[in-house]
Amino acid sequence: MRIALGQFNATVGDLAGNVEKMKKMWADAVAAGADLVAFPELAICGYPPEDLVYKKQFVKDNRSALEELAAACPQKTMVVGFVECSEGGLYNAAAAIRAGRIVGIYHKGLLPNTSVFDEQRYFRSGGSPVFIEVEGLRVALTICQDIWDKAWLARFFGGSGRIDLLLNISASPFHMSKIYQRCGVVADCSNLFHCAVAYCNLVGGQDELVFDGRSIVADSTGRVVTMAKAFEEDLLLADIESGEAGAQVRPLQAPTPQPRDEVEEIYQALVLGTRDYALKNGFHQVLLGLSGGIDSAITAAIAAAALGPENVICVTMPSRFNSPDTIADAKLVADNLGCPLLTIPIEPILKPFHESLQAEPRWNDKGLAYENLQARIRGMILMSLSNQMGALVLTTGNKSEVSVGYSTLYGDTAGGFSVIKDVLKTMVYRLADHINRRSGREVMPVSVIQRVPTAELRPNQRDRDSLPEYDVLDRIIMGYVEQDQSARELVESGLPADEVERVIRMIDRNEYKRRQSPPGVRITAKAFGKDRRLPITNHYATTIKNSKSEIRNPKQSPNPESQ
Amino acid sequence: MRIALGQFNATVGDLAGNVEKMKKMWADAVAAGADLVAFPELAICGYPPEDLVYKKQFVKDNRSALEELAAACPQKTMVVGFVECSEGGLYNAAAAIRAGRIVGIYHKGLLPNTSVFDEQRYFRSGGSPVFIEVEGLRVALTICQDIWDKAWLARFFGGSGRIDLLLNISASPFHMSKIYQRCGVVADCSNLFHCAVAYCNLVGGQDELVFDGRSIVADSTGRVVTMAKAFEEDLLLADIESGEAGAQVRPLQAPTPQPRDEVEEIYQALVLGTRDYALKNGFHQVLLGLSGGIDSAITAAIAAAALGPENVICVTMPSRFNSPDTIADAKLVADNLGCPLLTIPIEPILKPFHESLQAEPRWNDKGLAYENLQARIRGMILMSLSNQMGALVLTTGNKSEVSVGYSTLYGDTAGGFSVIKDVLKTMVYRLADHINRRSGREVMPVSVIQRVPTAELRPNQRDRDSLPEYDVLDRIIMGYVEQDQSARELVESGLPADEVERVIRMIDRNEYKRRQSPPGVRITAKAFGKDRRLPITNHYATTIKNSKSEIRNPKQSPNPESQ
Repeated sequence: MRIALGQFNATVGDLAGNVEKMKKMWADAVAAGADLVAFPELAICGYPPEDLVYKKQFVKDNRSALEELAAACPQKTMVVGFVECSEGGLYNAAAAIRAGRIVGIYHKGLLPNTSVFDEQRYFRSGGSPVFIEVEGLRVALTICQDIWDKAWLARFFGGSGRIDLLLNISASPFHMSKIYQRCGVVADCSNLFHCAVAYCNLVGGQDELVFDGRSIVADSTGRVVTMAKAFEEDLLLADIESGEAGAQVRPLQAPTPQPRDEVEEIYQALVLGTRDYALKNGFHQVLLGLSGGIDSAITAAIAAAALGPENVICVTMPSRFNSPDTIADAKLVADNLGCPLLTIPIEPILKPFHESLQAEPRWNDKGLAYENLQARIRGMILMSLSNQMGALVLTTGNKSEVSVGYSTLYGDTAGGFSVIKDVLKTMVYRLADHINRRSGREVMPVSVIQRVPTAELRPNQRDRDSLPEYDVLDRIIMGYVEQDQSARELVESGLPADEVERVIRMIDRNEYKRRQSPPGVRITAKAFGKDRRLPITNHYATTIKNSKSEIRNPKQSPNPESQ
Repeated sequence: MRIALGQFNATVGDLAGNVEKMKKMWADAVAAGADLVAFPELAICGYPPEDLVYKKQFVKDNRSALEELAAACPQKTMVVGFVECSEGGLYNAAAAIRAGRIVGIYHKGLLPNTSVFDEQRYFRSGGSPVFIEVEGLRVALTICQDIWDKAWLARFFGGSGRIDLLLNISASPFHMSKIYQRCGVVADCSNLFHCAVAYCNLVGGQDELVFDGRSIVADSTGRVVTMAKAFEEDLLLADIESGEAGAQVRPLQAPTPQPRDEVEEIYQALVLGTRDYALKNGFHQVLLGLSGGIDSAITAAIAAAALGPENVICVTMPSRFNSPDTIADAKLVADNLGCPLLTIPIEPILKPFHESLQAEPRWNDKGLAYENLQARIRGMILMSLSNQMGALVLTTGNKSEVSVGYSTLYGDTAGGFSVIKDVLKTMVYRLADHINRRSGREVMPVSVIQRVPTAELRPNQRDRDSLPEYDVLDRIIMGYVEQDQSARELVESGLPADEVERVIRMIDRNEYKRRQSPPGVRITAKAFGKDRRLPITNHYATTIKNSKSEIRNPKQSPNPESQ
């Protein structure tokens, strides 16, 4: 039996567009001799449709689109994900289509409702296994999460007979190194049922999520025999035979090169996420402020790879606090990438702004307010250009800054998409080296990589005046944000107690700032966004001593921006 | 048996503060002769704690806080909500405490996971009823949602014997007229079990939610015998006797005056929501831009009621497009309310900004970009003052504007809290009249109420040049946003087809703007925010004709701000 996994880039809500893509892939698969063609979870409507499924018309339209697809594909067997409305409830479903007709419908059993997932908000759980016969093989249908709980899966299929092939259609979002987990899950399924496993994943960017593809066919020993492309559309073909010794899998294509390490993986995720956010929202050009620092340089490089350097308009906006070196480096980065560069000095705007604000006697040019004003003038210049030119503004803050609120709301956080918002500063440096290695030249100048980080909003300012060194900061963030560790656990892991308490306080107090920041690519298992839902109004403080006295009320002081 | 319902204003995460408040209320209740004292759902940690419950230390600290409360309350019986960690899972639980010891724990059975609720993200469902005996009465414990599904509730208590009193501890957020539903639910429970019902609700603002209190004691005929204060802390006392004829309830206090209509209800919700957001986040002063229009006037009035007029700093920021009338009205509103007023004209900033932007040849002063620039200069002035003075910026956009994106991102949307973001323009007018009636004088000047709405960003601009009349616009928003009606249903209800399609397109396209807007008080059953989770990247378009051809791909054009 020949299987084809149609790993395509769906767009949420684009029912007609998604159907068109599947028709074309189906035709290619049939031309290549496929007996069974599978498409990802909720392929008809894109994933995740979120509250669109509350619209009755949307669910009806998604059903019509499924029927249109079925009618247009009159040969062989096809499995495709859609939203089913049945018995008054909604199901995350897979339709089995044969000879242009729907011959079976499977309802997803396990509905994830943690992390970025809200499936129990929308769907009911299905209860019964569905099998289809294709060329003498007995194929069990599953959807995404169903195969991630081995005990549940064993119970679910217990007593329902032989399985030759377990087919799983997924919309499994990328995070760093998740592919290893996924291969492990596929192998576990093979071992559990002594069957082949075909895993068809979605590809593409959808708001904060990136789906990385890498669909898999494994044999009954759990060996991954063939894997589709990473971060690209692909039609993965394999022949599957079932015999006494289990299921054999023969690939039909030469192996595709896969990302060699986590830095390349992240790079590709950022490029795809940025490209899809821009293009799917109708933007062919982006705008960003280039400071001469590493964060904006990396953002520009990723945007250039995503949309072409000619479509990445860089703007440098110097003030009297910018050194000649950083101004020169901004120009160098734009030149290296081949991006157009516009220069708009901010002093002519800063001065009258400062004068007007003196209407309030407390206003002065000595503190945070004056620093924030500079960042906001830059944000407004970018937004003004964006409105005039129809280009999307990219923000350039990294996850370390986003965590502790080392940014100016409506200043450097102003924009439509935040490319590296989930990339820690230490990883930003690794990405810079990687980009240079990858391109075989010094696209990211050494002077940019080696400069001591600074916001250049006052004379001789350095990030380290306000923050711990980035290696310490990033370890605290990984523990506290990504793993929900307590202050005590962090200190026990060897981190300095004073820094742990200071950083946690900063993270907790800056939830309001993150809430108003643009979306950006998720690359870790816990990004800010749907992954981490914390109240803004929150008096809880985790402290190092574990005693009754730690139940205290840290009266929040006003939250001036803290760039 | 004398019951006391401790309707208090909890703060999320403030374990020590919440315990202190309950200790004091418990002492007052015991002094008043209470046998049973109840506190709201998750009273120990505040509601909703969201992802705080993912922190193991938080759950432990919440348990310690519960034990501290129990030990401090050695007399009578108490029921209080907390997060329980048991058998490896978390439960939304109610502890029954007697003589300082925990004598029973009930686990919430129905976990809401729609609307603003995410309880299945955190909690497991409980399975067994828990009863306590107090002064000879058999009291069944329930938590919030448990009583909203009559069929489930009947099954849950089926065969578990007589119930004299059904106690429900809740954290039921306010929306317009919800009190009628709630009274209906309480009456249904009385009728179902022929018992008295005591319903203890939370009060206070928590980010977007406002809990309105109005705890209830009903007798076994379903009659609400006594109700606690609306939007205020209160200790509601009643005597309950059970006999052959069912349960009798005798109130111990004179009836409290309740809001007489939905406009008063909304007014009080806005005041409490604004006060609690400001104070719980450490702000005693707020700042806002006063334009001479009705939205900012209403926002100022609510802020003045919440925090005292002397703490509401109004800023008027005229340009050459503002008429002398609106400038005079801004001053009049500030004077009427007794708020300080600062005047900062924007022309001296607008001019150099405009000149600097000419570095980009396409820049001009004729279109949306130039209009947005004016709004952004105002937003930056407010944020600069906020950073310098430590005052919270309030934004003044109403729900009609928020829906269609009739606003400038980082301009009039810049701020920490958006007081009327869930109030439609037509309701803004009703609120203005109400505020005048309520105060017995013309606080909101007639000239403000009667002015044709305008943003004053270009000569002779009027809202109606870009938008339908507000009564039509608001009906479309109510149907499409609040009730998920399709375009066809809206047209069938009598709304003009062209306006329906135009408004829906605007609503869909402005999701990105709402995502970066500040939180604000929720007053309807579906506000923007946690209530309505739509993708930004979304190609679905609902159209009027219901045919296959409507599955179309509306390629999104760039999204310039559309003030």
